[in-house]
Amino acid sequence: MPSSAERDFVHAHIDDLHADLDAWVRIPSISADPSFAPEVERSATWLAEALRRTGFPTVEIWPTPGAPAVFAEWPSADDGAPVALVYGHHDVQPVDPVELWVHPPFEPTRVDGPDGPELHGRGASDDKGVLVVHLLGLRAHLAATGRDTPAVTVKVLIEGEEESGSPHFAALLEEHQDRLACDVVVVSDTGMAAPDIPSAVTAMRGLADAEITLRGPAVDLHSGSFGGAVPNPLHAMASLLAALHDDQGRVTLPGFYDKVRPLGERERELMGRVPFDEQAWLAGPAASRVATGEQGFTTLERTGARPTAEVNGMWGGYTGPGHKTIIPAEAHAKVTFRLVADQRPEDVAEQVRAWVDAHLPEGIEAEVHAPPGGVAPCASDLGSPWMDALLNSIAQAFDTDPGSVLFTREGGSGPEADLAEILRAPLLFLGVGLPNDRIHSPNERVLLPMLTRGAEAAAHLWRELAALRPRDRVDAAGH
Amino acid sequence: MPSSAERDFVHAHIDDLHADLDAWVRIPSISADPSFAPEVERSATWLAEALRRTGFPTVEIWPTPGAPAVFAEWPSADDGAPVALVYGHHDVQPVDPVELWVHPPFEPTRVDGPDGPELHGRGASDDKGVLVVHLLGLRAHLAATGRDTPAVTVKVLIEGEEESGSPHFAALLEEHQDRLACDVVVVSDTGMAAPDIPSAVTAMRGLADAEITLRGPAVDLHSGSFGGAVPNPLHAMASLLAALHDDQGRVTLPGFYDKVRPLGERERELMGRVPFDEQAWLAGPAASRVATGEQGFTTLERTGARPTAEVNGMWGGYTGPGHKTIIPAEAHAKVTFRLVADQRPEDVAEQVRAWVDAHLPEGIEAEVHAPPGGVAPCASDLGSPWMDALLNSIAQAFDTDPGSVLFTREGGSGPEADLAEILRAPLLFLGVGLPNDRIHSPNERVLLPMLTRGAEAAAHLWRELAALRPRDRVDAAGH
Repeated sequence: MPSSAERDFVHAHIDDLHADLDAWVRIPSISADPSFAPEVERSATWLAEALRRTGFPTVEIWPTPGAPAVFAEWPSADDGAPVALVYGHHDVQPVDPVELWVHPPFEPTRVDGPDGPELHGRGASDDKGVLVVHLLGLRAHLAATGRDTPAVTVKVLIEGEEESGSPHFAALLEEHQDRLACDVVVVSDTGMAAPDIPSAVTAMRGLADAEITLRGPAVDLHSGSFGGAVPNPLHAMASLLAALHDDQGRVTLPGFYDKVRPLGERERELMGRVPFDEQAWLAGPAASRVATGEQGFTTLERTGARPTAEVNGMWGGYTGPGHKTIIPAEAHAKVTFRLVADQRPEDVAEQVRAWVDAHLPEGIEAEVHAPPGGVAPCASDLGSPWMDALLNSIAQAFDTDPGSVLFTREGGSGPEADLAEILRAPLLFLGVGLPNDRIHSPNERVLLPMLTRGAEAAAHLWRELAALRPRDRVDAAGH
Repeated sequence: MPSSAERDFVHAHIDDLHADLDAWVRIPSISADPSFAPEVERSATWLAEALRRTGFPTVEIWPTPGAPAVFAEWPSADDGAPVALVYGHHDVQPVDPVELWVHPPFEPTRVDGPDGPELHGRGASDDKGVLVVHLLGLRAHLAATGRDTPAVTVKVLIEGEEESGSPHFAALLEEHQDRLACDVVVVSDTGMAAPDIPSAVTAMRGLADAEITLRGPAVDLHSGSFGGAVPNPLHAMASLLAALHDDQGRVTLPGFYDKVRPLGERERELMGRVPFDEQAWLAGPAASRVATGEQGFTTLERTGARPTAEVNGMWGGYTGPGHKTIIPAEAHAKVTFRLVADQRPEDVAEQVRAWVDAHLPEGIEAEVHAPPGGVAPCASDLGSPWMDALLNSIAQAFDTDPGSVLFTREGGSGPEADLAEILRAPLLFLGVGLPNDRIHSPNERVLLPMLTRGAEAAAHLWRELAALRPRDRVDAAGH
């Protein structure tokens, strides 16, 4: 393995990273459960102290109407140094069903796995493990470059409500817009394709949701007296939802694809090189014999690069034991849409309404509840110098060339688009989680060698970003 | 109004009928609620006493594993007199939502309505009111004909679990088959088309039910990671149920219509003469702007003479507040089928299984739970002399000619087919309920002038049945 000053430092001090992660995972910072609010506060306090200890001269805990965020800033002494903002979250998912955990979720436990040593615990990967690499990474950067301050001004904003939908995050960004001003956002809340496959996430999907209610008779009717002669809202709902996709697997909302940015040739090629064992993937939690979806796209493209519609819940009529011979008065469905750049979540409500109206049988009334907001999709600019800096950093950490760093897409949704839009800064994704880290599930784990690689990549990143010529940076910021 | 001895007696003693009904309705014999079991027993006791008082020499309360039935027999002194069995039920529906009742459900109250005086109370129509006409009717028959015993041997079997699905009725019929032996069954649990439209029900629909479970992933999946790439059981259920009817409104189960007896020309013609204000009907509880259903049939034919399929309940995935971005592991639906002669409820389970298999997308597993049993449809033989006797009786009570008595069909289902099959006797329907009696709903009522007509028709019926020549009866019994 080739040596570098950054690598040497990271390897020499990797126990510090492990100790930090162990201490942080022991704090059950579950934001969804109000009874854990004091633990989320404790997690913020721990993180603030860790940032101070790392050397950040400014560290603040920012309260919100919900859980607190942590802000830190370490200005570069270099004139004109770029400003980078690291984003992540210090809250974690609930642990139910707790009986499925082999080791207690908040007693981090080392386990030897097939790919190397793992640390098990809630948050070990999402997001404490993925974030913690920056503490050691920044120290390695300073030690390797012999500097007293980072080569770029490093700001950090770690929120405490990401696992609860980041309800106060956009307002926090608006409020502290000046102090958060930056040239580039480094999102550390994602993963790579596999332990031996260095890769970078290039986009995250957005989210919009709608609840549809169909109404027929004023009251539940006796199916003996009325059956076969009046519209049944459950039949109407079935027909409606059956028409949500066409025979090509495309979502049928009018205008749904209008703003979809097509996959570029380079990205598609790099995504296509990600090794993906579809049968193994299907045999996992999907427990499916087949992959389905939009025609003309691979499974990885369907889950990352294409917008989708999924019915998440459907109900109406009698659902108890035995049977009840009614035509129910109402039928309900919950549908969510995953969006990709440049779709806008606020467009979806109107599209759903138009679509429902177009499919409504006579005699059925519809009500569509589509809350404002939603989550916007976001995407990196693959051609920007910032992206080159990221790919260089990852390549060095993984002993490969930047052209071998593959691209992946994150199918899930987070507040990253708010960072890009409110701070008007491009997004880079540096995260070393793995697809089988079991985040949000029992027995969450992180692969420890990935954290070592992550700390190295983080260390390289500050040097790489600083090395961009000012001209590059102006161009990049212009995106 | 022309006079007859039967009519004179009924009119002179109508207060007895009203007093009987008042006393019986005061007993809250709700069979569905176990806490009312003593009241169902009290109802049986009251009825047994009323039958004794009417003159039946044999009156017995027959226990079942559920609520008791009442049996009575009054043999005719005439050699070779036919044997008729009156069927009905002494239990009633629950009264929820009780706050919607204008008068307390078990305090029978007279109300002056647009069509004459009404009696309000649970069971006032279904089935205590419809049944009670036989007490006065039989007394009128004896008084008018000057006989000590009826002209036909009258047997009575009044069950106590009809509103709970008659779970022990078929076994009771099997057990007492010998004592229940009869030439014809007179079902008194139905109604007529309108107060001024004498009519006879000719058939009741049967019932079969199925619960369908579709399974996809082993567990609920995150729609960000899996959305758009694996089969969603809710999508599969929507497509399946959307295919339950074709574009002609016909049920798509393979073989579903094979045994359906087509509507005869005479019956269709007589059904077509039933005055039916479709707009008023739709504006009632259906609250619908449109009637829909199988093409080529009227609303009355759709609800009475044609088999139907209705989804009664559907559920799966997340149904709580807000949204949850899952692809659920399972989807469920409950479907019931109304059947007409000569469909067999036991055929439906296999038809549903074949239909589900034919519509199942790859990657979705199906489970169909179709309990054995169900309710068989039943129908009168319109050409039999028994039917002529019924039409004559109704015509006399309504001062019209037998050819003016219209035919209707009962869309609901009951244990009548068991009577026909186990006792091997043809069915006649004599019932004076009305479509707007609000049976099973708050503010159930009966129109008192209909009870007067019913008692007259019941009085005429025994004479009319006895007047059939033995040759007619042999022919009729052969059906």
